[in-house]
Formats: sequence, C-alpha cells, structure tokens
Amino acid sequence: MAGSLPISPLAPAAFPDLPEIDGVDFAAVAAGVRYSGRTDVMLARLAPGTRIAGVFTRSATRSAPVLDCETKLAAGGDPDAGAAILVNSGNSNAFTGSAGEASVREICAAVALATRVPVSRVFTASTGVIGERLPHDRITSALGDLAGKLAPGAIEAAAEAIMTTDTFPKGAGKVVDTPAGKVRIAGIAKGSGMIAPDMATMLVYIFTDAAIAQPVLQQALSSLNKVTFNAITVDGDTSTSDTLLLCATGTGTGITDLQSAEGTAFVAALHDVMRDLAHQVVRDGEGASKFLEIRVTGARDESDARKVAMSIANSPLVKTALAGEDPNWGRIVMAVGKSGAHADRDRLSIHFGDILVAEKGWIAESYTEDAGAAYMKAPELEMTVDLGLGSGSFTAWTCDLTHGYITINADYRS
Amino acid sequence: MAGSLPISPLAPAAFPDLPEIDGVDFAAVAAGVRYSGRTDVMLARLAPGTRIAGVFTRSATRSAPVLDCETKLAAGGDPDAGAAILVNSGNSNAFTGSAGEASVREICAAVALATRVPVSRVFTASTGVIGERLPHDRITSALGDLAGKLAPGAIEAAAEAIMTTDTFPKGAGKVVDTPAGKVRIAGIAKGSGMIAPDMATMLVYIFTDAAIAQPVLQQALSSLNKVTFNAITVDGDTSTSDTLLLCATGTGTGITDLQSAEGTAFVAALHDVMRDLAHQVVRDGEGASKFLEIRVTGARDESDARKVAMSIANSPLVKTALAGEDPNWGRIVMAVGKSGAHADRDRLSIHFGDILVAEKGWIAESYTEDAGAAYMKAPELEMTVDLGLGSGSFTAWTCDLTHGYITINADYRS
Repeated sequence: MAGSLPISPLAPAAFPDLPEIDGVDFAAVAAGVRYSGRTDVMLARLAPGTRIAGVFTRSATRSAPVLDCETKLAAGGDPDAGAAILVNSGNSNAFTGSAGEASVREICAAVALATRVPVSRVFTASTGVIGERLPHDRITSALGDLAGKLAPGAIEAAAEAIMTTDTFPKGAGKVVDTPAGKVRIAGIAKGSGMIAPDMATMLVYIFTDAAIAQPVLQQALSSLNKVTFNAITVDGDTSTSDTLLLCATGTGTGITDLQSAEGTAFVAALHDVMRDLAHQVVRDGEGASKFLEIRVTGARDESDARKVAMSIANSPLVKTALAGEDPNWGRIVMAVGKSGAHADRDRLSIHFGDILVAEKGWIAESYTEDAGAAYMKAPELEMTVDLGLGSGSFTAWTCDLTHGYITINADYRS
Repeated sequence: MAGSLPISPLAPAAFPDLPEIDGVDFAAVAAGVRYSGRTDVMLARLAPGTRIAGVFTRSATRSAPVLDCETKLAAGGDPDAGAAILVNSGNSNAFTGSAGEASVREICAAVALATRVPVSRVFTASTGVIGERLPHDRITSALGDLAGKLAPGAIEAAAEAIMTTDTFPKGAGKVVDTPAGKVRIAGIAKGSGMIAPDMATMLVYIFTDAAIAQPVLQQALSSLNKVTFNAITVDGDTSTSDTLLLCATGTGTGITDLQSAEGTAFVAALHDVMRDLAHQVVRDGEGASKFLEIRVTGARDESDARKVAMSIANSPLVKTALAGEDPNWGRIVMAVGKSGAHADRDRLSIHFGDILVAEKGWIAESYTEDAGAAYMKAPELEMTVDLGLGSGSFTAWTCDLTHGYITINADYRS
C-alpha cells in the first residue's frame, strides 16, 4: 500500500541538490521483498579509510540487524577495509528469532562478496512488516545487479529505496568552509510515513568526506542526536529498528578536534543537516497537517526542559487541538503539569509565536482568543513555554494528530 | 456541547441500584455555570463522625480546589463536625491564579453556612473549561436550593450533575457481609468523555457506612487506587483536577484493622467498587469502541510489569490497531521494547484471549491470522504478555483510539 498516500502538505518542494561525497557510491534496485513496482533495496559502498559512528534504538525488542550493527560498531573493525551499508524496505526482520539472525548473516556474506568488504564492515538495516521471516534470497540474488550499478551520484535513488510509506524521500546536505578547507556532508532519512501493519522506523544515513577519528565522529553524532532526532516525536512510539549511521570517508579535510575552528564548523554543519532531516521526518508524520516547534525555557535544568517539551509534543490533547486549529493553551498547562518536571503555576508563561498567551498562572490580560485562533491557522507553529525557574532549555518538534493518523493506522487491515 | 454525543457502545445497560449509605445526603441543581438545561452542581452532606480519605492528581499545575482539598485533608479537621462535598461541572477553576483561590474560599464559606459544617470540612472540586474565571456566584446563590433538596436517595442525580461530556453517569456499589455485620459501599465517578476545550478530569466519590479510622481508610484507598484508577488510561494525559474521595460515615459496622475478617471483606468489596468505576471511565473513553484488559505477567517485579502494561495501554499504534480490529501483535512487541522494563525477546509470549500468538521471540507455530482477526472483532478484549523473567504482574485497562477521539478533541473549536 506504499505510495497510496498523498504527499504530505508539509513536504519540501523537491529533493535537495546534495554534494557528492568522495568515497561513497550508491545503488538501488527493485528486489520485490514485499512491494512491487518500486525500488526496495539500497547499497552504499564506502572507500577504505571510512570511519563510522552510530546511534540505535534503545528498544528492548530491537531487530536482528540492529543487534548486528551494534556488535560490529563496538568491535571497531578495520577502517582500511572500507565498508558497506545494505538496507531493505518492506520487512523489518524484527521479532523473527534465530531465522532473523540467519537472514542478517546471509545478507552480510553476500554483500561482502559483491563489494569485497569484510563481513565485519557490512552494516544492514530492514524496515517494514514485523514478525515475518525476511525473504533474504530476494536480496542476495539482487546483489550482483546492485554492485554493478554503484555510482557516486545515486543518493536520491537510495533515499527512495528505503521509504516504506513515507510520502517523500528525505535528504539534506551542506558544504562548509573551514580554515583547513571544505567539508561536505550529505544525508538521507526515512520515517514516520506508514500504513497498516508496519512501524514508523526511522533510518538515517549521513556521509561526509571529513578525515576524522572514529571516537571524535561518534562524540559529534551522539551529542547532536540528543537535540535533533531524539527531540522529535510523531506518536511517542519507539521503533524496534531505528538506526542512524554517520560515515566519514576521510578523503577530504582533516578534523582532529571538535573544539578547533574546523571542528566547530563541521559540528555546526552536521547539526544543520541532522536537524533538517529530523524535521523532514516530522513533516512526513502520519497524517500530519501542522509542524510545531516547542521551545521550553526557564527550566531548572535541561533534563526538566526536555521532560516538559516532550510531554507537550506527545500529548494527544495538544496534538488534536493543533489539528483543530484550537488555541487551547489549557492543554499546554496540563502537559506541563503531568511532565514530572519542576513547575510553579504562578511563574509559568506561554507564547504562541510572538503572542503572550498566559503568564503568572493565568491568561494574559492582553491575550484575545481571536489572536490565538488566527495564529493557529498557519501550517508551521511555534509555542514557547517559560517555566521561570532556571536556565534549562530544550526545543522539540512534532506534528498534529489528525483523522489521517487514525485512517493510516486503523482503517486498513494487515 | 455536552450531551451531543451518543452513549458509548461500551456503557452498562443502566445506572445500578446502589445501597443507601446511612449518614450521606445528596442534592443536585442546575446553576448554569456553563451548561444550560441540565444539572451542574452537586452537594453531598456527611454526618458527624465521617472519616475522609483522598487521592489527588500529581500534576504540578493542579487546580485551586485540589490544592484546597489536599491542605484540608492533611490538617485532619474534626470528624465530629461532619463534612460536605460540593462539585461543579462546566469550569475547572484551574490556572485561574489568585481569582481561583478566592472562588474556592467563597464557595466553601457558602457551603459551610448552608450545611452548618465548618469550612475546614468542606471539600470542593470543579471540572470543565480551564483558564476561565469560575462564576462562583452562580454556585453560591444556588446553595439554599441545594441544601433544601438534600436527600439520602439522590446519588444518581449527583452522578449526573458532575458529568461534563461523559455519555453516561457512572455508579457502583456493594453490600458485603462481614462477621461483624454488613458494610455498604456506594460510589460515583465522572471522566473521559469530553468535547472540545475541556480536559478529561476524573472525579470519584465513594461512600460507606463503615466505622473506620481515617489512617486505615486512607491506607485502603491508596493501595487500591494503584491497581484500579491508576491502572487505567484513555490517552495518557493527566488532568489538573483528578480527585478521589472516600467517605466513611461510621454509622455501620466497625472495622479496626484491614487484616481482620471484616477488614478483608471490606477491602475486597471496595476493590470491586473502585475497579467497576475505573472500568466505567474507560468504557466512556473518548470515542471508545473497544475495551481492552492488558495482563502482564512474568516481569522482574511489579514496577516493571506496570511499565509494560501502561506502555501498551498508552501506545497510539496499539490503540489504533485495536480500533481497526487488526491483530497486530508486532505493535505489542514494540510497546514492550520501548517500556523501559527488562525484557528478553526470546522469552516473550503473547496471548490474545486464549490464543497463543507469539512465543520465544517469534510468532507461534499454531497461530493463524484468521484466528487473531476473528478474536479482535469482540468489543471486550484481553491480551496477556508474559515476559518470562520473574513473578511481577500488573493488569491495566484501556480503550481504542478511533476517529471519534479526533472528532471530539479536534473537530470542534473552543
């Protein structure tokens, strides 16, 4: 049923022009894992010298490919052997017991053979139906074709092949000038558009030509992940397969330290790319018609600010009010109250965009329902909640909860 | 807009016959707080000697009446002075600053005058729109009328007056024989049916003629609350006004100790009444068409079992699958994985009713999609998740997430 949904009204106008990253080739094919008439397997081959950092779902029921990636990243492996990434859509190979582990082994072996990369440097991911045995032979038998097609410019085709019921392919990139030279970053993502029995797995692959040590790369990725992908939510449900890999081919500018001028510029650019991809996932949230930025300030600390922001972002009552264009600030108060963070009703203030809605525990004297209602009609909204207690802040992003979400997840049968 | 919704398909056939509790009188009037053409204020007067126990929302933004009740219960007060409970619907008096506190003071003073109970023993609650000043004069000017109408048999009228957009009044009761004599329990509740700008506040008032000390009464209430009202969820959003009061008039059988034969019988009966009322709140969940019992067993401890049960009960993907009559057990696996509880994929088993769906990390060999799909058609469902790790267990209850929920919360404007 993939592709039967209209493109999200919050989608970007077009897939962006992404910089080519020296040392990365892409290919995509239609292997027929589950879908027909579209590509569903992508391969990326990475040059010798590539360092890889990763972040994965913390689910206790994570999938066989996730467990395999975690093991391989922890072991380190030999960067000089290069690396490969193979992703299929249509089947998540999650909750498939020992058969799932066998499928990962078969696929990794075939990728290693086709790309001349050791198995220890082959990373896979699967997204789609849960609990069904992955027909891995359809993938392994397509590998000759895939390897033959590898080309530096095929990143958009790769982004399309990993879609499940995303309504648009997601890409973001940046070329940044540093004192030591240019650094190029290009990334793709999938997630949050889905239909019937699948889960909204998020997969993200980001490539850069920076020459950077793996621990430094991992440090940049982990810290930025907290304020980008871990700051978005569509429905609060966590996938068994979420995977984020950052691959640095080392063919370009050297970055030895994140605090250097080069490092600072690289981190800022990587932040932009990660935030852009994270936003695109929210913009393709199931049934989404509104994009909401929630800024929490004045919390006792960042942890409290995050609790409040995510409590608001995950509240079905806030999200349905958003869908109804209802300036229902009482639901924001409710979500602050239930968040578990320290809050004092009489210090709380709320803004919708620039409009002061509530302050000191009550509706603002200057606020009018008409102003609030007019503001809510925009497709992109900002709400700021100041707790008035300290200097902790956090920003989260979410979409509204509409009939579309129910239609996508309830009206179809698996 | 209250009353415009059809009665929930999960509603009981009729309001139950409840035992009269010696020492409690009820009255209800139409004071026009917000609604017209219906009652919206209820008064209960409790005889001298009444002990009162309470449990309240833990929201950091709880309402003025909740804060007032907490203060009074903590202070104890003089049971020999009797007590009174005044509840209005239509306005929650939450996030109304010092004006909200003044309204509580005005109402308590007027109730004290009309019922000849000291202010320290007057407990109030308000439910409805948030952030609007409560027109308390409409309530205080109705108090003469209310006090004049007080009668022992008017509990159903009281249950009706506290409804906001509940689709049916909720009551449950029990007469239990103990070695020392009969104990009567009767309770009413409101919650989880709502429309547009209100929140689904839950209010529960339970009355008994037991003669029991306040600390013992509080102990019974607090421990049973964990496995009844704190084990239900409609949408995971916590009200600013949730209030549960248990009032023992002391006119009947004496209970000195919860471990005695009388105490055990009383606790069992109180548990039945509280679970019944909690289930009725779920059965009137916004847009609900299915009632789901989630039993988690085999967890490392009860806390882990609760985490898993509530993660399943609050998952929008589980709840939309329920609405779609989709036996989507993969979403159960996802919810177990994200719960934060200890879980081992290869020890997990899932039953839908008596049907074994999954075991040892994979779909059960005996399971058929047809059997699962047929099971899902029932309006009342049970799902059991065994984690295979220990002896911790917990049972939670929830309803499905349907277009009705979106319609109620998004399609109307405040």
